[in-house]
Amino acid sequence: MKILVAMDSFKGSATSKEINQAVADGMKKINPQAEISTYSVADGGEGTIAAFYENDLGQLMEVTTLDLFNQPISAIYVLFDEKTVVLEVAETAGIHFLSEEKENKYASSFGVGDMLRRINEKHPEIEKFIIGLGGSGINDAGIGMMQALGISFKKNNGEEIVYGTTEIEEIMEIDISKFNQALATKEFILLSDVKNPLTGPSGATYIFGKQKGVIDLEKVDQALQHYAKVLTAKFEIDYSKMESTGAAGGIGISFLYFLNSHFVSGAEYITEMLALKEKMATVDLVITGEGKMDRQSAYGKLPTIIAQLAKSQQKKVIAVVGDASEVTTENYQAGIDLILSLPRGPMTLRDSIEQTKKLASQTGEDIMRIMKKL
Amino acid sequence: MKILVAMDSFKGSATSKEINQAVADGMKKINPQAEISTYSVADGGEGTIAAFYENDLGQLMEVTTLDLFNQPISAIYVLFDEKTVVLEVAETAGIHFLSEEKENKYASSFGVGDMLRRINEKHPEIEKFIIGLGGSGINDAGIGMMQALGISFKKNNGEEIVYGTTEIEEIMEIDISKFNQALATKEFILLSDVKNPLTGPSGATYIFGKQKGVIDLEKVDQALQHYAKVLTAKFEIDYSKMESTGAAGGIGISFLYFLNSHFVSGAEYITEMLALKEKMATVDLVITGEGKMDRQSAYGKLPTIIAQLAKSQQKKVIAVVGDASEVTTENYQAGIDLILSLPRGPMTLRDSIEQTKKLASQTGEDIMRIMKKL
Repeated sequence: MKILVAMDSFKGSATSKEINQAVADGMKKINPQAEISTYSVADGGEGTIAAFYENDLGQLMEVTTLDLFNQPISAIYVLFDEKTVVLEVAETAGIHFLSEEKENKYASSFGVGDMLRRINEKHPEIEKFIIGLGGSGINDAGIGMMQALGISFKKNNGEEIVYGTTEIEEIMEIDISKFNQALATKEFILLSDVKNPLTGPSGATYIFGKQKGVIDLEKVDQALQHYAKVLTAKFEIDYSKMESTGAAGGIGISFLYFLNSHFVSGAEYITEMLALKEKMATVDLVITGEGKMDRQSAYGKLPTIIAQLAKSQQKKVIAVVGDASEVTTENYQAGIDLILSLPRGPMTLRDSIEQTKKLASQTGEDIMRIMKKL
Repeated sequence: MKILVAMDSFKGSATSKEINQAVADGMKKINPQAEISTYSVADGGEGTIAAFYENDLGQLMEVTTLDLFNQPISAIYVLFDEKTVVLEVAETAGIHFLSEEKENKYASSFGVGDMLRRINEKHPEIEKFIIGLGGSGINDAGIGMMQALGISFKKNNGEEIVYGTTEIEEIMEIDISKFNQALATKEFILLSDVKNPLTGPSGATYIFGKQKGVIDLEKVDQALQHYAKVLTAKFEIDYSKMESTGAAGGIGISFLYFLNSHFVSGAEYITEMLALKEKMATVDLVITGEGKMDRQSAYGKLPTIIAQLAKSQQKKVIAVVGDASEVTTENYQAGIDLILSLPRGPMTLRDSIEQTKKLASQTGEDIMRIMKKL
């Protein structure tokens, strides 16, 4: 029996590679003859870079740059081929750099711009930047990133606004005269798994701000509205209602106005780059999964994308998930034959997270019991 | 597809009939064409009588008798055929009759003896009493039962001991002269699912006493030891180390000395009386289960007995359980192909109990997904 395993990371408990391996280990216990291949996958969030280097695609690289408080850090990225790099916003502006002492209102995407510039300088032949937007701790609509690339955001008195969100509402003028021309001709593919617009009740701030430590949601949302207005006036086009501009603290809005950018579904784009469909061609069963599967998952989330690639080739699909309590018929209609959840009895979320790998391995055993005997 | 469903009750959340029905409902949702037959089953505990009348075996009867504090109650039993009745100790001496005000030390099996006498008077042609021992609240080693049947247990001063456990240690003499002769010629089949001996660390009191509200475990255990010694001296044979004499507060010890009794595995005996093996002959799949499955379950517990009946005919077997967290390979070796647990995500025991039927139905859906597509 040939089986392909490609599960999304279980946020906070296991990376894609780890959860794949745990399920595969369990399957091997029951059926040592099974030919199991595992592929790390991601949707533009956590694990996007890993989905390349763990699958031996491209070359893992490192660059010295700045975190969201402009402290020096080392960030990784993947040189996919001569003309393409893959990177993650979270490598520089990741939510993990935030702490109670370091308030979100001073967090800036400056490091993202710095990283783009440095990578471009290291590999001037690059034509395409593939950028995973997930996992960021910023909420500055990419203003910091553009500052790092030479754009100037001036207040009434002509002074540059400070890093973070506190002075965005005071932007009166955007000076593009010193914009880094080396990046002007490059293409930026923005991988996102959220559809939220820049502002408003379903926008970047109100939906994701709280988990990033934004205190005054209303003020910051209005600041981003102000920024969108200034951009719209200047460029005579309004991108702020566009899907996904709410990702990564609104960073996409700056990409769209200042750089040759477009949004794509991270799940679709990455599975295509990994040639997952072709890799499924000869298998009997595809295993996918994610931490929590619900109705939303049926609409474009990674496990569903993978299930659909499998179903287009009449493969059987089992999803292994941490929490299936909110699964609906739509999840099955989207191409999944069976959804197995990790808990094997009443247990707390904390225990379920702590025991993720053990439980995933036991679920792998169950999958083989199902395939062998039933 | 033909499927037989026979699951043990989930104690405290669903009867055998209810949990069977919930799983069957789920299966029907996914495959309305499936031919599903459900059988209530029991192992000598809760649901023993129901396993007969719910399967249209025998006639449901009622008798007025006494509870474990000698209060009048109505108890049910099944007239299986002209010569056989099926009853449960818990109908008169059930743990549900205990309360905080009513202390275990005054709880007596008197009602059990009273029930036997009355049933025998109503149906004098009866030759066999099949008695489920599970679910009792008594700990008096059946002394009360024998008092109801004319046996006298006398203290040093010649007085009868009081009901309950407080004066067992004072028994000096057992007077059998007034024993109810009508029962002397009958056969008593004792259905038990526990192997514990009468006394000691794994005996009736230390293992089951606490949940029945026995306060002074040591004193009561010694009282039962004393009773066993008096019996051994009187009848010149020692039954107290025999397996299962620890069931139902030690009631079996009195049965063994005073009545024509023997212990059988409740699970084996009832499944045989229900002709479950024959009913499986034409099905494709057998579903069984229990509230919590663990290593112990592999050794003679009801779901394993059912699995083995199925396996002896090369049937596929799936167990649905509330908690599979302590399942071992022995459970699979005992004849179960797959064990599915109810929780579909992290959840408390309380929630899992409250949602048992809904979760069981969802698991029924999963079973059909497994059988249809995988």
